[in-house]
Amino acid sequence: MSKIDMVGEKILLDHGAGGRASHELVTRLFLRYFGTNDGESFEDSVLLDLAGGRLAFTTDSFVVTPIFFPGGDIGELAVNGTVNDLAMRGARPLYLSAGFILEEGLALSDLDRIAASMAKAARAAGVRIVAGDTKVVPKGAADKVFINTTGIGLADEGVDISASGARPGDKVILSGTMGDHGLAVLCRREGLVLDTEIRSDTAPLFGLVEAIIGAAGRDVHVLRDPTRGGVGTTLNEIALSSKVGIFIEESSLPVNGAVIGACDILGLDPLYVANEGKLLALTAADSADRVLATMRAHELGRQAAVIGQVRADQPGRVFLKTKVGGLRLVDMLTGEQLPRIC
Amino acid sequence: MSKIDMVGEKILLDHGAGGRASHELVTRLFLRYFGTNDGESFEDSVLLDLAGGRLAFTTDSFVVTPIFFPGGDIGELAVNGTVNDLAMRGARPLYLSAGFILEEGLALSDLDRIAASMAKAARAAGVRIVAGDTKVVPKGAADKVFINTTGIGLADEGVDISASGARPGDKVILSGTMGDHGLAVLCRREGLVLDTEIRSDTAPLFGLVEAIIGAAGRDVHVLRDPTRGGVGTTLNEIALSSKVGIFIEESSLPVNGAVIGACDILGLDPLYVANEGKLLALTAADSADRVLATMRAHELGRQAAVIGQVRADQPGRVFLKTKVGGLRLVDMLTGEQLPRIC
Repeated sequence: MSKIDMVGEKILLDHGAGGRASHELVTRLFLRYFGTNDGESFEDSVLLDLAGGRLAFTTDSFVVTPIFFPGGDIGELAVNGTVNDLAMRGARPLYLSAGFILEEGLALSDLDRIAASMAKAARAAGVRIVAGDTKVVPKGAADKVFINTTGIGLADEGVDISASGARPGDKVILSGTMGDHGLAVLCRREGLVLDTEIRSDTAPLFGLVEAIIGAAGRDVHVLRDPTRGGVGTTLNEIALSSKVGIFIEESSLPVNGAVIGACDILGLDPLYVANEGKLLALTAADSADRVLATMRAHELGRQAAVIGQVRADQPGRVFLKTKVGGLRLVDMLTGEQLPRIC
Repeated sequence: MSKIDMVGEKILLDHGAGGRASHELVTRLFLRYFGTNDGESFEDSVLLDLAGGRLAFTTDSFVVTPIFFPGGDIGELAVNGTVNDLAMRGARPLYLSAGFILEEGLALSDLDRIAASMAKAARAAGVRIVAGDTKVVPKGAADKVFINTTGIGLADEGVDISASGARPGDKVILSGTMGDHGLAVLCRREGLVLDTEIRSDTAPLFGLVEAIIGAAGRDVHVLRDPTRGGVGTTLNEIALSSKVGIFIEESSLPVNGAVIGACDILGLDPLYVANEGKLLALTAADSADRVLATMRAHELGRQAAVIGQVRADQPGRVFLKTKVGGLRLVDMLTGEQLPRIC
């Protein structure tokens, strides 16, 4: 099934029935991108030799629409989203599974493009896609393609990074600008054309995590990627888990001009818009300068900034010091600001 | 969110937005069934201490309709389907992730029932559901609920069970009757009422696998659960992977009377209908009697039967000796016999 063979071809219910057509889809499309020659391709589960240790395990389903958008696509997102959830525990991502739910009638060329994108993203992230599954549902029972990825990583024994690890005095560092991913998807979906195209920030973050841990070791208390719900919601989760108050400064928050403009037009707050290639690091104050410098020296952290600090008062809450000097409560996202953003 | 609170409540887009409503759904529903007190519930990934060894890893998405059917539901299926794929490599199932894609408007009481069923099935299978994700798509973009489960198991170093392990002379043993799951789902979907209700055979198979390995050790060459595509397709996969011919006898195939009757009405061949609590074991001929006796002594193998044997001729092909003495080629399932059966 070369690319040319697939032009005009569509996914049929057959492709998910577990019979000959399923076998051909796996052989001719998925294994072309994800396959190895280890003879494990048609087993019920794959066997992986692993050193003992602290296994990190995470799952995420991707339902983004449109499936292709400026800066990425659902396949790249599905790889980066899951490797980043492993990285946020300080774990090196190793293996992914990929479960596809396809709508009857999906263009095979679109699926091919998505699989190619996943394979490329996996190489960039240093992981292997070793297990897969494909289901097909009748036209109208799903929307084009949904992808679940589930990941396995390994964490060093010494690493103890957790959403409950923030301590009063910690500095809150954001690795770059807010809201690029969410706005890139939304602008494409709504047909909003801006002077400057907003591109998704989707990227694998383990390299940046490794650099941060290298710079500050156990002084790194929390790492978290602010995806759905954005920086505002993620900080709330950390404040709740760690039973601390978090105070951030509006004037310190990095946001691209185009994102500010689009948010104004659409009535959105960039604090709640999803990111797919950014992280929040909460580190002991003594190490904050070192972490900031390390992040800025990394290609995925050039615009990193200290955006606030952790305090013992107001546990479970997040406050924003506005540019005019007021203090406002930053709640979790309430209401659906942006459906199907990842 | 007690059960009573949820009567009449429905899933909203909010529940998948990653903000407060998502947090409440996780806290009040999922963690009530899957939660532990290890403080890992709101991390990006869970950390698991694991002895080194041969990790088995597998993924499966479940899109069955209807979501409740005689003998089971989508939740029980999602647990058993994945633990069985681990068990078929001889691996003890340990951990599962669960990724939900929900359609806006799904009754919360249905989701509650599914989560309860998954928790019960996980206990029965001896696994823990340790990672999860929930996405919500607008009404019409999915059909009620899709569930991905991905599983981790551990295999003993000595175990070498694989679809490519069949050898000429091996006996082919089926652990029980064919087609019960597929027909149970289809009869419910089509409103077909029979004198005897057909119930899904969904069950976790690792206990049976352990008994088989205990009885025959390295003489167990292949284990495989004939789900989508049924026994006919699964035997084809084994014949292809192992480069052997497989010859089965129609008169030896165990099928329930009600399944035969329903297949006649619906024009289906039970050889291609999905099972969710059966396995095929290919073992050295010397151990076949011992394996058969072991299976029959287990509650999930009471109707086990030797259905055929492996030969060196006709590699990659499966043949059925019919009751009247003819020999017919058993191909892989072609065409979609039963969409959305798992």
